[in-house]
Amino acid sequence: MSQCETVGSVFKGGESMRLTMRLAERSYDIIIKQGSLKRIGELVNLNRKVLIVTDNGVPATYSQTVAAQCKQPYIETVEQGEQSKSIAVWQQLLCRMVELNFTRGDAVVAVGGGVVGDLAGFVAASYMRGVDFINVPTTTLSQIDSSIGGKTAVNLEKTKNIVGAFWQPRLVVIDPDTLKTLSKRHYAAGLAEAVKAGFLADSELVRIFEEEDCEEYIEQIIYRSLIVKKNIVERDERETGDRAALNLGHTIGHAIESACSLQADRALYHGECVALGMVPMLESEALCNQLIAICKRLGLPTECDYDKQLALAAMRHDKKTDVSGAIKVVKIPKAGMFRLDKVPFEQVEAVLLGTADQIPAPKKEEEE
Amino acid sequence: MSQCETVGSVFKGGESMRLTMRLAERSYDIIIKQGSLKRIGELVNLNRKVLIVTDNGVPATYSQTVAAQCKQPYIETVEQGEQSKSIAVWQQLLCRMVELNFTRGDAVVAVGGGVVGDLAGFVAASYMRGVDFINVPTTTLSQIDSSIGGKTAVNLEKTKNIVGAFWQPRLVVIDPDTLKTLSKRHYAAGLAEAVKAGFLADSELVRIFEEEDCEEYIEQIIYRSLIVKKNIVERDERETGDRAALNLGHTIGHAIESACSLQADRALYHGECVALGMVPMLESEALCNQLIAICKRLGLPTECDYDKQLALAAMRHDKKTDVSGAIKVVKIPKAGMFRLDKVPFEQVEAVLLGTADQIPAPKKEEEE
Repeated sequence: MSQCETVGSVFKGGESMRLTMRLAERSYDIIIKQGSLKRIGELVNLNRKVLIVTDNGVPATYSQTVAAQCKQPYIETVEQGEQSKSIAVWQQLLCRMVELNFTRGDAVVAVGGGVVGDLAGFVAASYMRGVDFINVPTTTLSQIDSSIGGKTAVNLEKTKNIVGAFWQPRLVVIDPDTLKTLSKRHYAAGLAEAVKAGFLADSELVRIFEEEDCEEYIEQIIYRSLIVKKNIVERDERETGDRAALNLGHTIGHAIESACSLQADRALYHGECVALGMVPMLESEALCNQLIAICKRLGLPTECDYDKQLALAAMRHDKKTDVSGAIKVVKIPKAGMFRLDKVPFEQVEAVLLGTADQIPAPKKEEEE
Repeated sequence: MSQCETVGSVFKGGESMRLTMRLAERSYDIIIKQGSLKRIGELVNLNRKVLIVTDNGVPATYSQTVAAQCKQPYIETVEQGEQSKSIAVWQQLLCRMVELNFTRGDAVVAVGGGVVGDLAGFVAASYMRGVDFINVPTTTLSQIDSSIGGKTAVNLEKTKNIVGAFWQPRLVVIDPDTLKTLSKRHYAAGLAEAVKAGFLADSELVRIFEEEDCEEYIEQIIYRSLIVKKNIVERDERETGDRAALNLGHTIGHAIESACSLQADRALYHGECVALGMVPMLESEALCNQLIAICKRLGLPTECDYDKQLALAAMRHDKKTDVSGAIKVVKIPKAGMFRLDKVPFEQVEAVLLGTADQIPAPKKEEEE
């Protein structure tokens, strides 16, 4: 059984926070500060060619604010949505860099949510075998989770994140002010990844979700979530072991997400699916009740209607299924602790089909 | 001024040789052995899904020999030639892996020359953010140079190697028997990279080219060339410094190669262009005569006719030109020693236009 170190309560509202991801020569800082969008040039060299990748769902003033700080900025705005995480869009951005004579010393900046970060990150990873990447996440989901850790990717037809690279950013700049333009639902969906971080390794974060006003505590929520992720990524940058813990809720969540995405009227956000996918991984009724109460408080769904056969098909295609038919899952025996487990495919299938609510806890004698 | 360690004469013909590229957790072995193609399964785990990438210019028996040693082999044969180093072909191979449900634990094997190695290497680097890559080079060029060092890439329209990754192989298996099916010209062109290695850092290798029978000494030539490259790559895996030495002959060589490739009747092989590009980088007449004599002995060109304006345009587009208009070149003051230098663009231009034979040696007072 693994556990992350618990973080003490050392926060005051509104101040700037800095985290350092320690990955030898790939180390980098993560800055969390209101208003930091306007001050990126003080933190990293923008005195060069900079490709700023954003999407048309992100307020244009955000990318313009970054551009105003660059010597030679080029803003590229892609369509909002998952369909921009494609090889075609990735290739267009690379062609643009060739056309503009970008060299190895130039940089790519992502301004937006997870789609923009994954796409721009893979552009930076592969142009001339790698140029500097700076990530400026502007959604709860990306500020809390996807902007750190170095996973970049695009999709291949229906297969998500199948082509990509581990490519760490040089710097991540998180300005919580940018969250003000998000819709309420979008905002809440991203918080699901912070709830995940809490259940994985920070029971104080779980308490905040139960008792405090999340908007007021947003910087602390982001900071604490990133510490959980940072500790796990530092131990296992390339997901050969414990990093898989970050997939809590994602096995069932992805299956539901795939099934729902094919039925336009039922489409759910990624974070919403993660919330739904976490419930069956909790090893006691008390934990389930705790999570469900938090979801209700945040406005996250606690149940949903999806095509069970579509979800099962998506699950079968999931990369986490191994040859023996077992499937890796992340279980929560106690808030703030996780367990990596392999369970028979049928147990996960039963949950998806609605014939079981939970993945059974391991038998006592099997525990370490 | 930098110099690689010189290698002692410790070889006997025909035996197997092993080199280890020491790059921390990315370290790997390079095996040089006649008949090793048939014995790859003894060296690396082939008890999994294996995508074997080859081209239709490589004898099919080579990939079949590898396939016979795999549990689940899938041979993919691309068209011979540079045009296969494209995003379209790379994407086709990735789609094939998705279709075959390849997982992170599966592997990609390249069987062929530099094009196949670069292409398959980038497929391995980017599928699920990286799977095992095993390189089985079957040409002089790839056995001597391109199969080690971890540079993978594809081209974007006319821009060579602009999209790719540093992705080290798990193992490189060099079977000199596979060279027997190469044409004489193809064989000789690849040796140019070994001549380069000799002038860079191994004067004994230069002597072999001057005095010995190259076919008889081929294993030693491969081994010594790889040691030169290995020493440089180990010091500078990602080409932030000394690794640029491996570009000796490539600045002018690439320009000539680009110009010639646009005129079908004059097309030259990469190695032939490298040989031509090295001459102006030698800092004495004696060195030039030495290199020209070697080229004549090997059947490499010592002069060629190309469109000067096309070559100049290609050079201007070259990634090694910096903002100030200076261009990085690698000079040879003495056989077995190199000097990284920045010279005015005009000096290289003059050589390409035929108004100068050499890049001038630096003035005495500028030497370190």
